[in-house]
Amino acid sequence: MLGNSDMRKWLYYQLDSDQWPNPGLSPMNRIVTIIILLAVAITVLETEPLIRSRNTEFFRIAEIIFGFLFTIEYGLRLWAAGENDKYKGFIGRIKFILSIESLIDLFAILPFLITFGFENTFLFRLFRLLRLFALAKLGRYSSALRNIYRALHARRYELLMSLLAGFIVMLLAAAALYFTEGRSNAENFGSIPRALWWGVATLTKVGYGGAYPATVLGKLFAAVFAIAGVAVIAMPTGILAAAFSDAFQQERKNRGTTVKMD
Amino acid sequence: MLGNSDMRKWLYYQLDSDQWPNPGLSPMNRIVTIIILLAVAITVLETEPLIRSRNTEFFRIAEIIFGFLFTIEYGLRLWAAGENDKYKGFIGRIKFILSIESLIDLFAILPFLITFGFENTFLFRLFRLLRLFALAKLGRYSSALRNIYRALHARRYELLMSLLAGFIVMLLAAAALYFTEGRSNAENFGSIPRALWWGVATLTKVGYGGAYPATVLGKLFAAVFAIAGVAVIAMPTGILAAAFSDAFQQERKNRGTTVKMD
Amino acid sequence: MLGNSDMRKWLYYQLDSDQWPNPGLSPMNRIVTIIILLAVAITVLETEPLIRSRNTEFFRIAEIIFGFLFTIEYGLRLWAAGENDKYKGFIGRIKFILSIESLIDLFAILPFLITFGFENTFLFRLFRLLRLFALAKLGRYSSALRNIYRALHARRYELLMSLLAGFIVMLLAAAALYFTEGRSNAENFGSIPRALWWGVATLTKVGYGGAYPATVLGKLFAAVFAIAGVAVIAMPTGILAAAFSDAFQQERKNRGTTVKMD
Amino acid sequence: MLGNSDMRKWLYYQLDSDQWPNPGLSPMNRIVTIIILLAVAITVLETEPLIRSRNTEFFRIAEIIFGFLFTIEYGLRLWAAGENDKYKGFIGRIKFILSIESLIDLFAILPFLITFGFENTFLFRLFRLLRLFALAKLGRYSSALRNIYRALHARRYELLMSLLAGFIVMLLAAAALYFTEGRSNAENFGSIPRALWWGVATLTKVGYGGAYPATVLGKLFAAVFAIAGVAVIAMPTGILAAAFSDAFQQERKNRGTTVKMD
Repeated sequence: MLGNSDMRKWLYYQLDSDQWPNPGLSPMNRIVTIIILLAVAITVLETEPLIRSRNTEFFRIAEIIFGFLFTIEYGLRLWAAGENDKYKGFIGRIKFILSIESLIDLFAILPFLITFGFENTFLFRLFRLLRLFALAKLGRYSSALRNIYRALHARRYELLMSLLAGFIVMLLAAAALYFTEGRSNAENFGSIPRALWWGVATLTKVGYGGAYPATVLGKLFAAVFAIAGVAVIAMPTGILAAAFSDAFQQERKNRGTTVKMD
Repeated sequence: MLGNSDMRKWLYYQLDSDQWPNPGLSPMNRIVTIIILLAVAITVLETEPLIRSRNTEFFRIAEIIFGFLFTIEYGLRLWAAGENDKYKGFIGRIKFILSIESLIDLFAILPFLITFGFENTFLFRLFRLLRLFALAKLGRYSSALRNIYRALHARRYELLMSLLAGFIVMLLAAAALYFTEGRSNAENFGSIPRALWWGVATLTKVGYGGAYPATVLGKLFAAVFAIAGVAVIAMPTGILAAAFSDAFQQERKNRGTTVKMD
Repeated sequence: MLGNSDMRKWLYYQLDSDQWPNPGLSPMNRIVTIIILLAVAITVLETEPLIRSRNTEFFRIAEIIFGFLFTIEYGLRLWAAGENDKYKGFIGRIKFILSIESLIDLFAILPFLITFGFENTFLFRLFRLLRLFALAKLGRYSSALRNIYRALHARRYELLMSLLAGFIVMLLAAAALYFTEGRSNAENFGSIPRALWWGVATLTKVGYGGAYPATVLGKLFAAVFAIAGVAVIAMPTGILAAAFSDAFQQERKNRGTTVKMD
Repeated sequence: MLGNSDMRKWLYYQLDSDQWPNPGLSPMNRIVTIIILLAVAITVLETEPLIRSRNTEFFRIAEIIFGFLFTIEYGLRLWAAGENDKYKGFIGRIKFILSIESLIDLFAILPFLITFGFENTFLFRLFRLLRLFALAKLGRYSSALRNIYRALHARRYELLMSLLAGFIVMLLAAAALYFTEGRSNAENFGSIPRALWWGVATLTKVGYGGAYPATVLGKLFAAVFAIAGVAVIAMPTGILAAAFSDAFQQERKNRGTTVKMD
């Protein structure tokens, strides 16, 4: 028969992703991940009035269930933490509760439990959105994230310099646009921040496309701005893609040296 | 003189791309490929009313010819399969008919043969489109596809993580847009799914570009959304391009060790 | 004093880019390149009525001068070709004249010389544009081009497969758009070619952006089309960029082993 | 106690980025960098009338302070330059003042100091913008820039060829557009420069999107133009990203061999 301490040990290996010796997530952490993604999906769908109005009862029950599940997960983690020498005893548990990962777990539970008393107000909506915070719980499965962080850190100068270089070109193009078009179209080019926003809005298509430079020089600077804007996105993206590849090759190498446990 | 079994053997080597020892496709498979592409091209052109109405007779004959050619190809493959020990005898042929590749061939023939009896109805149009299924026949020439699949599989974590990271940023930006713009422009930003769709439609230019965020914060989040959206396409594309290169370098290496057969 | 044959030898080394031992172009080929680019620039500017109408005389003189310069260049090349054993004697010169590079040179001269007799007609405009053909003369400096060609050739399967894969996804998305939107918006989605054109026009922004899919499924397929469209451009571009890098690394390696000549 | 010459030596190591033995910038150069970025940020914000009108006093004081700080920095650099054998004595200081970096510093000070006497005129605005020239002071921290320059220089042929190849395709597509659409839509396609500008404006979205090719051939060439335009940005960007990576890997290698100094 499985004793109490055996079960705690089993739980510890299941819940702590650093203790799980095989590649990928443990079965229990896979279930937790699915619950997190479901909670986020339901939070997203609940914001849609057409869906919410027809399924009020469903969403009320769902949020109670998710709050309940996250509470149970929190309790199990608290119990299993005793297997770790760092978190043994009462003082150890206090330390565990105050660790960043546990605080994230706690903050992720609250917006599911506390929804009573106030209706469709500003605070209510903000609180609802805080449920998306459950995504931060995914940060726990951190070996991939850690590798990405390391790869990004090793390339931080490339990223900074490529962003800076592109941004300086955009700034100078915006200054030139302000200088050539600012008089005739003050609303869109009447200052460098306005010219910058006009360029960003035009490039990312998130702004109205109604205004365009009128002079030949203005058109030229707008084209320079546009090309610098593409580069300012494309170069860091390329560097990021390379960083990702490096991170996962590292990950794969590390995994290759890990011993399998049954 | 070429005997019956010699011819079957010759056909077997011509039709089975894994048995063909030289790089590229065998002459017969090249002809089959051209027939497939022609069949698809004619199916595509036939959907255009301006072309169809003037060439009814041509399309009627073409579909009969393609159905006929695919039927002959199917028969030849069935016959030649006897060269393979797995598919010998009557039981073997049943096995061959039930193999995925043969079922694909069978399903690709049907929409060319069965077009009688019903005119421009929903089912008729659906059936016509099923002719595009002939493209699946190309999946048979699989050594390149297999390498691509392997390269993709080896990089599945990069692809997943880069998609997930980009998607989370887009989700949070959509949530912020919903929060800042949802009240004033409920139609476009009144829920997270609406804000997400607005962003995707704006970025991919497949949606009407009539609505824009009105507040400064909303504009900022829209720009964040746009940049994350570019990254969410660019990074997996970069990883895919690298996977393609790897796949074909592998392919070339493998080909290099293959012996030429006359 | 420089004898006639010394001068021919000197010219031969100056004009034939394969004989020039130093990296880059020879001084004379640099001059020829500048003349070609000037001729193209003037041809481009001449099409603009605002510029042409005010500088008729200038353009008339310019085209005579360029025709004259290209004729001299042609003559010098013909003369210097005698240094090459392949093109010695009268028969050799005929061979030289019939070589692809010489024919390109000849065709590049004609549209500068023959402009008399007919005014602003269809033929006249076509003939004018043929002056852009002078760009083909640049193909002569071919060591870089040859390396690019080789790099492209080595990666032709990647390029083909990435284009094909993207195109098949676009085709299927267009077929789905035709199927879901074809009834309600026949003008834009009434056939697969129309849906394809709508998608290409929307993505490349060269078409009117007035029509959009109305159904949820249609929007989804439009988004799939857009993403496949980005990939269909981005992946071959990535492969091309890698091919360029390879080509020039090869070029640099080759140059490294070349001996300098004074 | 720190003597006068000790302090000059300390300043010399702090101010000259080539003398600073640790990775990154010295504490004093970090402060200078922050001052430069603040000065630029304030110059940018000052162009916005809504901000300027409410903070006239603040901007007046800020420009005096920045002028003052840059003057002090200039003086300190002039004093510390004596540590360098090249710039010893009076003649040495004249040499230092005439060095490019010192002239940049001088020109960066002037637009902050000289703002009296003339109000919102053309010259006034131009002079204001010259404050952005302070960004050129950042060029002093040049080891990263030098590596980037070297990497770019080593790949200059790739960059040139990829730009040229893309540009020739764009030029030919524009010529074809002019030829097919020039008659019916003279305003947008009536000359090659107009067709070129139409394409650039459409692609970079900086132009009005009102005109489109009407003929099938015109649409085709417009699509060719669009695809070449994407490639003409994407390929050099990819080559630049690779050059950046190379430059910083070199940088990191160099840094790895530098001895730390306390």
